[in-house]
Amino acid sequence: MAQASSLPLATLAPDGRTARRLVRTGQHTGHTAGMAPGHVQANLAILPRAQADDFLRFCQRNPKPCPLLAVSEPGDPLLPTLGDDVDIRSDVPRYRVWRDGMLVDEPTDIASLWHADLVTFAIGCSFTFETALLQADVPLRHVAQGRNVAMFRTNVQTVPAGAFHGPLVVSMRPLKAADAIRAVQVTSRFPGAHGAPVHLGDPARIGIADAGRPDWGDAVEIADGELPVFWACGVTPQAVIEAARLPFCITHAPGHMLVTDLRDHQLAVL
Amino acid sequence: MAQASSLPLATLAPDGRTARRLVRTGQHTGHTAGMAPGHVQANLAILPRAQADDFLRFCQRNPKPCPLLAVSEPGDPLLPTLGDDVDIRSDVPRYRVWRDGMLVDEPTDIASLWHADLVTFAIGCSFTFETALLQADVPLRHVAQGRNVAMFRTNVQTVPAGAFHGPLVVSMRPLKAADAIRAVQVTSRFPGAHGAPVHLGDPARIGIADAGRPDWGDAVEIADGELPVFWACGVTPQAVIEAARLPFCITHAPGHMLVTDLRDHQLAVL
Repeated sequence: MAQASSLPLATLAPDGRTARRLVRTGQHTGHTAGMAPGHVQANLAILPRAQADDFLRFCQRNPKPCPLLAVSEPGDPLLPTLGDDVDIRSDVPRYRVWRDGMLVDEPTDIASLWHADLVTFAIGCSFTFETALLQADVPLRHVAQGRNVAMFRTNVQTVPAGAFHGPLVVSMRPLKAADAIRAVQVTSRFPGAHGAPVHLGDPARIGIADAGRPDWGDAVEIADGELPVFWACGVTPQAVIEAARLPFCITHAPGHMLVTDLRDHQLAVL
Repeated sequence: MAQASSLPLATLAPDGRTARRLVRTGQHTGHTAGMAPGHVQANLAILPRAQADDFLRFCQRNPKPCPLLAVSEPGDPLLPTLGDDVDIRSDVPRYRVWRDGMLVDEPTDIASLWHADLVTFAIGCSFTFETALLQADVPLRHVAQGRNVAMFRTNVQTVPAGAFHGPLVVSMRPLKAADAIRAVQVTSRFPGAHGAPVHLGDPARIGIADAGRPDWGDAVEIADGELPVFWACGVTPQAVIEAARLPFCITHAPGHMLVTDLRDHQLAVL
């Protein structure tokens, strides 16, 4: 879940390392949208080893909603490929702690909860492709209006693995046809950030009854002459994990992402 | 205009050189659809030098309908970059000769009409990207039904140059949303063959009142759950030339193209 529930300006940081230092030292506990422009942010899932193998296979089978940027060694809180100082116990502004499928806490640090059995998954997020779209002059209404992107549960099923299964969740951005075509081109370059759209046009085709009533995020107008364009969304793995009612797991709080050292353009395949 | 008005099987040739020999020797006078699979075919316009400079600027300004593959030296009937034996006086199965904007003849050879003032334009055609779409398992209904693609005049104006101006003509292929997204990706690789679509969805947005009544080619059904997807079409320069009512010019007869030595994949930019 990339977006915060409200989007006041985040603390600005020139790079991922600075952003993480502000987070780690408690100087920044808010959302991370726009925090270190041009740097990749990641969705987070921390699972016990007993479920981690299944979840890894789930991500492998569903790369559009779950583009894996990094998977830690079991018990290792570091993710050196995302930044040589990344410590996942402290570098996310706000976490969600789940027990038996219930949200039990939203701490700003999980050092006390860490143990040798945990595996961290860092999953690419739409901020990367939204930056690329804006740089390509493709207008994004929810950004212009300072809102969350609209997200919807679909009737498209993910490919299951072990306890992990459930519907694909998508984000929707209304675009004129020429911008939709350009958006396919731009986002196809970023398979590590959900890649090309999964659908465009009639929302009912993917089981969305009312494109004006999102299941997550904020409603956004679809103006005359615009098509709704749908991308696989990082809420998918969050919802799948929640539905699996694991004995224990940790995710990031919505919009409170891990800011990495990776530059957005490093995720571009072309 | 890529398609023939009817599509019986063309004579098959293993390569462009063989195809041209069959044409040059009068053994093949029909359309060229599918004649040398995998080889680029070209739309043709032959103009007096007095208009050729304007037309060259017209093509430069309108690259989606007019992707130039080659432009000859004035008076030179050869196009060596398309095949070292290409002689444009004999290597197209059927020509159209125009005088003062009127179609006056459809010969199979133009040697007697050639003179030192003529400039040849070879323009990429949709056969190249249709081959790529079919190889990507994007279904093309008009191909499956053995029909011409449906083509429409739009209310989108080309960028004029000299005497050359007029509306963009598009071809339309009905596709499911996922195939439309894939088609954007596949055809974006081929700017030399009209490239990515120019529009998808509501035909009225580009001035098409009835997508079931094409201005050229055959009507094709748009099934439930499909979007019409529109590409810039090589009929555009043909229509623009016709409207310019030049004292003299020559084009290919619809569907009777120049078969080149270029392989389709050589036009791919990625």
